[in-house]
Amino acid sequence: MNDTPKFAVIGGGSWATAIAKMLCVNVNEIAWYMRSTYAIEHIRLQKHNPNYLSSVEFDNAKLKLTNDINEAVAYADYIIFAIPSAFLSGELEKLTESLEGKVIFSAIKGIVPETSLIVGEHFHEKYDIPYENIGVITGPCHAEEVALERLSYLTIACGDQKKAKIMAKRLDSYYIKTKISDDIVGTEYAAMLKNIYAIAAGIAHGLGYGDNFQALLMSNAIREMKKFIRKVHRMKRNINNSAYLGDLLVTGYSVFSRNRMFGNMIGKGYTVKSAMMEMSMVAEGYYATKSAYNLNEEYKAKTPIIDAVYSILYEGKDAKQVFKKLTDKLD
Amino acid sequence: MNDTPKFAVIGGGSWATAIAKMLCVNVNEIAWYMRSTYAIEHIRLQKHNPNYLSSVEFDNAKLKLTNDINEAVAYADYIIFAIPSAFLSGELEKLTESLEGKVIFSAIKGIVPETSLIVGEHFHEKYDIPYENIGVITGPCHAEEVALERLSYLTIACGDQKKAKIMAKRLDSYYIKTKISDDIVGTEYAAMLKNIYAIAAGIAHGLGYGDNFQALLMSNAIREMKKFIRKVHRMKRNINNSAYLGDLLVTGYSVFSRNRMFGNMIGKGYTVKSAMMEMSMVAEGYYATKSAYNLNEEYKAKTPIIDAVYSILYEGKDAKQVFKKLTDKLD
Repeated sequence: MNDTPKFAVIGGGSWATAIAKMLCVNVNEIAWYMRSTYAIEHIRLQKHNPNYLSSVEFDNAKLKLTNDINEAVAYADYIIFAIPSAFLSGELEKLTESLEGKVIFSAIKGIVPETSLIVGEHFHEKYDIPYENIGVITGPCHAEEVALERLSYLTIACGDQKKAKIMAKRLDSYYIKTKISDDIVGTEYAAMLKNIYAIAAGIAHGLGYGDNFQALLMSNAIREMKKFIRKVHRMKRNINNSAYLGDLLVTGYSVFSRNRMFGNMIGKGYTVKSAMMEMSMVAEGYYATKSAYNLNEEYKAKTPIIDAVYSILYEGKDAKQVFKKLTDKLD
Repeated sequence: MNDTPKFAVIGGGSWATAIAKMLCVNVNEIAWYMRSTYAIEHIRLQKHNPNYLSSVEFDNAKLKLTNDINEAVAYADYIIFAIPSAFLSGELEKLTESLEGKVIFSAIKGIVPETSLIVGEHFHEKYDIPYENIGVITGPCHAEEVALERLSYLTIACGDQKKAKIMAKRLDSYYIKTKISDDIVGTEYAAMLKNIYAIAAGIAHGLGYGDNFQALLMSNAIREMKKFIRKVHRMKRNINNSAYLGDLLVTGYSVFSRNRMFGNMIGKGYTVKSAMMEMSMVAEGYYATKSAYNLNEEYKAKTPIIDAVYSILYEGKDAKQVFKKLTDKLD
């Protein structure tokens, strides 16, 4: 790898756009892959992504835009995946370029539905990427506030702390502060699980529970998350660090969170199918719920909130009844 | 003490009104002391507190209303104080009745300005009440949601677990769930400290920081609170339980919190004095900040958020500059 490693962003959504923006503060050139040729043309001509964070202006001299994922992969030493987890397998099938020697960062925060693995595990198991070449970029960080250059903190986790530092240095700026971590499994599970708790928060809100209950729910959620992650990968971690608790709060309390909105519709009486159609997209937490529930049949952590969301989303149980029972299990 | 202990509520504000409402579900009679004879007359005639939670209807047959604190104290075995901490000393000076043998519950969540003690310590040191007769009632619980009968959870802490259970049983109902605890010092400090963090959250909001930073701030606040409380009273406690983290969140994220509102005005450029005048009352967190800061000169916990709020409120430092420095100390 070069002394000045090259970076590629995979994805054209809001989080990918935010990451491209952050990188461009520190890097002279990045490759940026997105499927939409229309969006690429629009960025070239108008300097703005037409679909996401469209207020952000890009310097085209810094962007190698492409709709060929192989071009982006061939170009870069560090590849940041920021697409919905449901699309990851499909994108990776297009690869003819090798990922050997590449450093893969996940900014996905979800579970790969086909393998029920978090993204890091998926690359490790399916593409033989060693864990020292796998990393995670995690919040608490709404892309929308990156667009506004509101001070935000990121945690950059990688098996190899040197590579975490290299990535962190490229994201750091006057509105982004970074810290590094070696907990790639825990931070990625936290980022995945928080979406389930955001759905739970949305359901509670939709059912008419108030702020007192929301605070109680989050207090239970972080304890549940700690138990779950400890079963998956036991190591010393402070679950109240920003990558875990902070990320949970920014999502669980956000009225903009797609997961919370999805839950809110379920709480208000929409069926799962109609809530999905209404949103014209699938919330990450929907898949995460199934994967976490299934995983936990092995781990057997006590996870009443995940169990409740699962029974509503996948077993057709009545949200009101399920939450009434759930309230007796919380404290 | 009787097999059926008698209860008194001290205070006419919103939290006192909420507690009176909760008790009346389970108890046939309570004494209720408030200073305002107008409010007492209004409740007698109209069944509603004219000033706070005025939607709540009371059954006057259950209320022994009085504006003589001695009458309420003489009547009761369990006395629940729910007045602003700044008024506590003044009220206690009126006492001619003895507090000996009485069980004192604090629902105050603040520091007694004259002694810089939390309420439990104040009663212990100044009135020789043994700790087995001292308790704390804590949230996460906005009084406004009690009025609406929205499901809320309370933690009832007491040195004597039997007395905690007796109190909890009287508050429990179809919209209130209770748990008991033996951490009277930790729960009361948490309830006091969270008001400082709510001021910090308000200042940040007023200065234009966004949701990403708010989540980061709360993640740092709970870690800071844990360190502080451990210095004050070391015991096994899970800081993520609802009495600590839950109470922090319900206040820190509430747009109705007086402490957060006070901070917000400071962040927007009001002086401390003008913010107080505008609010026509003093936020509990204002006193708590000074007391916590002074206490910590002895304990020396690392408390950058408390220090920042202190320097803004008491040393006239510029909020924008102080928060800019604070952001470098958080992670």
